[in-house]
Amino acid sequence: MITTDILIIGAGPTGLFAVFEAGLLKLKCHIVDGLPQPGGQLTELYPKKPIFDIPGYPSVLAGDLVDNLMEQIKQFQPGFTLNEKAETIQKLEDGTFIVTTNKGTEHHAKAIAIAGGLGSFEPRKPLIEDIEFYEDKGVEYFVKDPELFRDKKIVIAGGGDSALDWSIFLADVASHVTLIHRRNEFRGALDSVEKVQELKKAGKIQLITPAEVTGIHGAEKVEALDVEIDGAHQRIETDYFIPLFGLTPKLGAIANWGLEIEKNAIKVNNALDYQTNVEGIYAIGDINTYPGKLKLILCGFHEATLMCQSVYNKLNPGKKYVLKYTTVSGVDGFDGTRKEAEKQVVKAIE
Amino acid sequence: MITTDILIIGAGPTGLFAVFEAGLLKLKCHIVDGLPQPGGQLTELYPKKPIFDIPGYPSVLAGDLVDNLMEQIKQFQPGFTLNEKAETIQKLEDGTFIVTTNKGTEHHAKAIAIAGGLGSFEPRKPLIEDIEFYEDKGVEYFVKDPELFRDKKIVIAGGGDSALDWSIFLADVASHVTLIHRRNEFRGALDSVEKVQELKKAGKIQLITPAEVTGIHGAEKVEALDVEIDGAHQRIETDYFIPLFGLTPKLGAIANWGLEIEKNAIKVNNALDYQTNVEGIYAIGDINTYPGKLKLILCGFHEATLMCQSVYNKLNPGKKYVLKYTTVSGVDGFDGTRKEAEKQVVKAIE
Repeated sequence: MITTDILIIGAGPTGLFAVFEAGLLKLKCHIVDGLPQPGGQLTELYPKKPIFDIPGYPSVLAGDLVDNLMEQIKQFQPGFTLNEKAETIQKLEDGTFIVTTNKGTEHHAKAIAIAGGLGSFEPRKPLIEDIEFYEDKGVEYFVKDPELFRDKKIVIAGGGDSALDWSIFLADVASHVTLIHRRNEFRGALDSVEKVQELKKAGKIQLITPAEVTGIHGAEKVEALDVEIDGAHQRIETDYFIPLFGLTPKLGAIANWGLEIEKNAIKVNNALDYQTNVEGIYAIGDINTYPGKLKLILCGFHEATLMCQSVYNKLNPGKKYVLKYTTVSGVDGFDGTRKEAEKQVVKAIE
Repeated sequence: MITTDILIIGAGPTGLFAVFEAGLLKLKCHIVDGLPQPGGQLTELYPKKPIFDIPGYPSVLAGDLVDNLMEQIKQFQPGFTLNEKAETIQKLEDGTFIVTTNKGTEHHAKAIAIAGGLGSFEPRKPLIEDIEFYEDKGVEYFVKDPELFRDKKIVIAGGGDSALDWSIFLADVASHVTLIHRRNEFRGALDSVEKVQELKKAGKIQLITPAEVTGIHGAEKVEALDVEIDGAHQRIETDYFIPLFGLTPKLGAIANWGLEIEKNAIKVNNALDYQTNVEGIYAIGDINTYPGKLKLILCGFHEATLMCQSVYNKLNPGKKYVLKYTTVSGVDGFDGTRKEAEKQVVKAIE
């Protein structure tokens, strides 16, 4: 059992920054995220793209912002449970919570901050009959371990960066790569499109366009696909089918936690502390909603801060400490470090 | 008459960032500030000190944060009325406002955002009888133009950085500099204290400690001061008396604008858009108050953003545009510049 003061669900920018503000209030944080690395969609979807509306940054690459936030919070030594999704929650009699992930990891916390962004990223699945039956039996929506495809026949479907990039990468791994796309045009980085063109000419990737996979065959696992090309049907033998049609965010298991939901977002009390209808559970960043809500990173930073102060007030009744200018107060890390502005000296003149 | 969409009162970090968010919504901003330069207390009080709680900056010097914000907003070409304080406000029948400064400059705006920080900085005045009579007649609380003191006898009172720094600077300007402090110890940067010590030894600064100025004499203007030294009294002839006892923030004229005030701050509706009790007047950043308020720069950024969206909604009834990810939407400057993330290509593979 992992124990902490605030369990943060979601390692995007809002969740990461919450660790800092909590740390100023001497509260420890642990973060759960379904992705394999911190940063949320900034890392997963657009690490090399600029963001223009982070206050004080005329422009910052999404990946750099995540790196900076990780640097800013490291002194407060957050724990991470990555690659696991928060699945169930249990409120104990003393008002604390136990959150269990899809892999069974249990976390015990005094407060919960859901910072899940637009939700957890689920693959967009093609509308093919019985595709669920073949999941993990030849149908793979992510390339988690390329070695799975070593010397196998694979079919990749899709026309974006993921489909292009994995076709290129797996051309050297698989025995045979077929790329199927419903249009002739691909949408991606220019050099990826050109590389696929070269590999096609070199005979290392077979390209079928405009075409669509319409059926899957196989007794126990994927053995062949039906492909519709220009109205005609063709059957292709393959070991694996990898549809890469992008990710779509879903609230997921959190939708069943008894929280008030509105338009796929969690309602919170923005007049005070961004708490949900369940005392002790907060929702901050893009995953919450309230009158006037804007889904912006800078708003998540503010919400995270007021959430931390609220948790502090609940856990320390009677104490009146509030977050204040760090230039004056300095920052004491849990790792023993102290940051502070240079003090003025007090000195007599003889 | 200066006309704009949003008149921002206060050029601190919150007021500056409001220009950016307003610009994304195609709203023009003009800023009024009583100080001679943008940045508010960050520039005036601690430009060389680090701030640790700006999200994404493990540490940033206050002056650098202001520079970065100025860079971030320059594409939206804000106007500035500096060195003037907003004094009176008039609401016109069409719901717009005219704000006039202490120097008579008039501004006509569709909405007002008060981002006055802790208030306008007023000098702390020593408790000396009739000192008001001598203001601008030999008593100066700020050194606005050092040339005023060229070849004059001056007395500076105070024990902090301002008193030290101006004693050093004016030692080369005035004919005679006396520094009076009620303690033997000075509080300031080490090199300033040492420099004053040197100048004292060189006979360029006369130091009187522990001592206090207790009276002012002169028919039309300052001619002499009473100084109490160790219980004894002494009269010192001087042309100028410069008490530098620090600045204290005051709400000032804004306190008379008919806004609900609570503990020296302006009450706003934090459940929606940080508007005050007067429609069209908002208060953002350290100057406002609401349940759970924290006086942090990052909170001001959020409040500024929701304020801008609210103004947009009022001015554009029926339109549903909301602030969204700049990575997707890009930024169109009023100066004709466009910033955007590199687009993916769409290209056929032959």
